[in-house]
Amino acid sequence: MQDNLEALRYVKGNLQLLDQRLLPHQFKYIDASTVSNCWTAIREMQVRGAPAIALAAVLSLATELWNRKSEFHSLHKTLEFIESNLRYLETSRPTAVNLFDATAKMRVQIQLEINELKTNSKSEENSIQKIISKFIDSAETMLKNDASDNKSIGKFGAEFILNNSNQNKLKILTHCNTGSLATAAYGTALGIIRSLHEMNKLERAFCTETRPYNQGARLTAFELVYEKIPGTLITDSMAAFLMQTKGIDAVVVGADRVVANGDTANKIGTYALAIAANYHKIPFIVAAPTTTIDLTKETGNEIHIEERPPDELTYLNGTRIAAEGIGVWNPSFDVTPAHLISAIITEKKIITKNALAKVFNLKLEC
Amino acid sequence: MQDNLEALRYVKGNLQLLDQRLLPHQFKYIDASTVSNCWTAIREMQVRGAPAIALAAVLSLATELWNRKSEFHSLHKTLEFIESNLRYLETSRPTAVNLFDATAKMRVQIQLEINELKTNSKSEENSIQKIISKFIDSAETMLKNDASDNKSIGKFGAEFILNNSNQNKLKILTHCNTGSLATAAYGTALGIIRSLHEMNKLERAFCTETRPYNQGARLTAFELVYEKIPGTLITDSMAAFLMQTKGIDAVVVGADRVVANGDTANKIGTYALAIAANYHKIPFIVAAPTTTIDLTKETGNEIHIEERPPDELTYLNGTRIAAEGIGVWNPSFDVTPAHLISAIITEKKIITKNALAKVFNLKLEC
Repeated sequence: MQDNLEALRYVKGNLQLLDQRLLPHQFKYIDASTVSNCWTAIREMQVRGAPAIALAAVLSLATELWNRKSEFHSLHKTLEFIESNLRYLETSRPTAVNLFDATAKMRVQIQLEINELKTNSKSEENSIQKIISKFIDSAETMLKNDASDNKSIGKFGAEFILNNSNQNKLKILTHCNTGSLATAAYGTALGIIRSLHEMNKLERAFCTETRPYNQGARLTAFELVYEKIPGTLITDSMAAFLMQTKGIDAVVVGADRVVANGDTANKIGTYALAIAANYHKIPFIVAAPTTTIDLTKETGNEIHIEERPPDELTYLNGTRIAAEGIGVWNPSFDVTPAHLISAIITEKKIITKNALAKVFNLKLEC
Repeated sequence: MQDNLEALRYVKGNLQLLDQRLLPHQFKYIDASTVSNCWTAIREMQVRGAPAIALAAVLSLATELWNRKSEFHSLHKTLEFIESNLRYLETSRPTAVNLFDATAKMRVQIQLEINELKTNSKSEENSIQKIISKFIDSAETMLKNDASDNKSIGKFGAEFILNNSNQNKLKILTHCNTGSLATAAYGTALGIIRSLHEMNKLERAFCTETRPYNQGARLTAFELVYEKIPGTLITDSMAAFLMQTKGIDAVVVGADRVVANGDTANKIGTYALAIAANYHKIPFIVAAPTTTIDLTKETGNEIHIEERPPDELTYLNGTRIAAEGIGVWNPSFDVTPAHLISAIITEKKIITKNALAKVFNLKLEC
C-alpha cells in the first residue's frame, strides 16, 4: 500500500500513471512520458476521470518536450509538433470536455508566448526553448491548480449539503469514481464526501459499483477503505431502493461536460440516479471544476456520447459473463437535464438550480 | 443445445432442475427428486424465478412421496411427513409468495382428501395411498396450469401494450429473467415479449443484465438468442438513458409478491425502472400469475425483503471484483408502489392502475 493515492506521478521529464484497470488487485504505475503511451493509457482507461485525463494528456506532452528539447531547431516545427500532438491527444476519448479545455488553454499560453517573443525578438533557438518552457510551466500549473480547486469544491459542496439538511450526520450516495484517482488529488464529488468526513459530519458513504467498468466497486470502494471513510457498496440497480429505505441525504456525482444550459454529461447511470433523487426529493449535486463547463454547446443534445465495445459488458476479467450472440448497447455516459440538478459545485462558486444562467457568467469570469 | 428450454424436467418419481448458475456456459440438469436436494437448489439459486421455485418445491415432495410410498404405514405419520416437508420447503427463500401459495394449496387439497376419506371410510393403507396420490396429482396439475396460465398472461399483456401504443413494431425493456427458465414454460413478462414476437409486433427486446446475479445477461439474453428474438443487453444503469434516447414502448417485469394494495416486490432494480418509466411516461407493466398475489399483506411495507450474502456483489465466478474491506448491502428484491404500475397482467384478467381494488376481488374469485 502506498502513502498517497495518486493517479499521476509527475516530475519534470517523467510521468507515471497508476494503471487503474488493475485496481484493486494490483498497485502498478505505467510510464506515460510519451504522448503515444499516454494516448493509449487514456483510450484503454488505464487512466480515467475527466480531470485526470486532461492532466495526463498535457503532462505527457510536457514530459516529451522536456526529454526531447535538444531535438528542436526550428520554431515552426516545434509549434507544429505541439499542435499535432495536442490534436492527437484530443482523439483519445470524446465525451469529457476537460481534455479539450486543457488543450485549448495550452494553445492560448503558447500564443501568448509567441506574442511576447514577437515584441522581444530572440534567437530561434532561444524562442524554441521559451515556447517549450511555457508549455511545461503551464501544464505544471494546471496540475497544481487541480488539487487546490478540488479542495474548494469539497468545501463548497459540504457546506451546501449541510445548509440544506437538518441531519447531524449525513448519508451520501455517489456514483463512479471522482476521487484522488480521477483527479490530481482529493477528488470532486468524492472530495465533498471527504470534506464532510473531515468535518465529522458523514455517517456513511454509499457507492454504486458502476457497471460496466466497475469504477465504484474497484476504485471508489478502494479509496473509501484507504481513507477509512465508512462505506457501503451497492449495485447501480439498488440506488433507488436505498433512497426509499435508508434515508439518503444527498447524491453527489462528478461531470464530464456541463453545457451552457446546465445539462450535464457524466458516467452512464447518473441520469437514472438523478431521476430517482428527484422522485425522492433528495438533493442531486454535480461537482465539477470550471474546466468541465463547455459553453460552446447550448444543450445536452449536442454532446457526443462515447459508445464503447460490447466486450466491456459481456466479459469480466477475460471471462464471458453474458450469453453468446446477444446484441449489446454500451454508452459510456448519459446526459442529465439541468432541471434534475439541485446545484453544480465548482471551485469558484455554487450554482444552484434557479441560477443556471450563472454557468455562463461564471465561465466568462474564468 | 436442447430442443426445449425447461427449468424443470418432471416425470413421476423423478425431478431434474436445470442448474441456472451454470448458464449460459453449461447446460446441466441436477437431481431434485428429494425435498432436501430441492431445498438446497432453491436456496443456492440453481433454480430461481417465483413460479419455478414454487413448482420445484411441491414437485420435489411429490417425487419423494412417489418413490417412498411403500414406506408409509401410518396415516398420521404420512400427514406429518407432508406437513413438515412443506414447512421445510417454505424456509428456502422468503420473498416470493408463489411458494407459500403452492404449499397452502397443497394443504387445502390434502384437507379435502381427508374430508373425503372421512365420509368414505377406507383402510389406513388405502387412505395413505389416496393422500399421496392426491398430493402428486395436485402438484402435476399445478405444473400443467403454470404453462397455460403463462400463455394467457402473454396474450393479455401483448394486447394491453398494443392497445396503448400507436407504434407498429414495439421496443420493450425487461428486467431479470421471467422466461421459460423462471416458470414451467413460456414465461410471464418474457412471455409477453414472446407473444408480441409471435404476433410480428416486436421490434426489439432490451434486457438489463440484472446485477448482482446477472439473470438478465446469463438467462434472459440466453432465452432471447435461443428463441431468435431480436435482443439487446444493457447494464441496469443504462435503462433510464435508453428510455430517454431510444423510444421504449413499455417496460415489462415479473413479480415475486403483489400485495392487496397493488404494491409489488420484484427483483432488485425493478423500483428504479418503475421510477424512470414514470418519469418518461412509459407504461410499466407487471406480469404475474394470480398465485403471486398475497392478500394477507395490505401494503408493500409488510413484505419481508431477503438480503443475500455480500459475496454475490464482490465476487464473480470466484474472482474478487470489489476492493477488500468495503461494506456491502445486498437486498435481493425491492418494492414498487402501486401508483407507479400501469397494469398488472394476470392469467385471469388485466388489472389497470385505476382498478387496483380488483386485485382483491380477483384473488377472491380464484
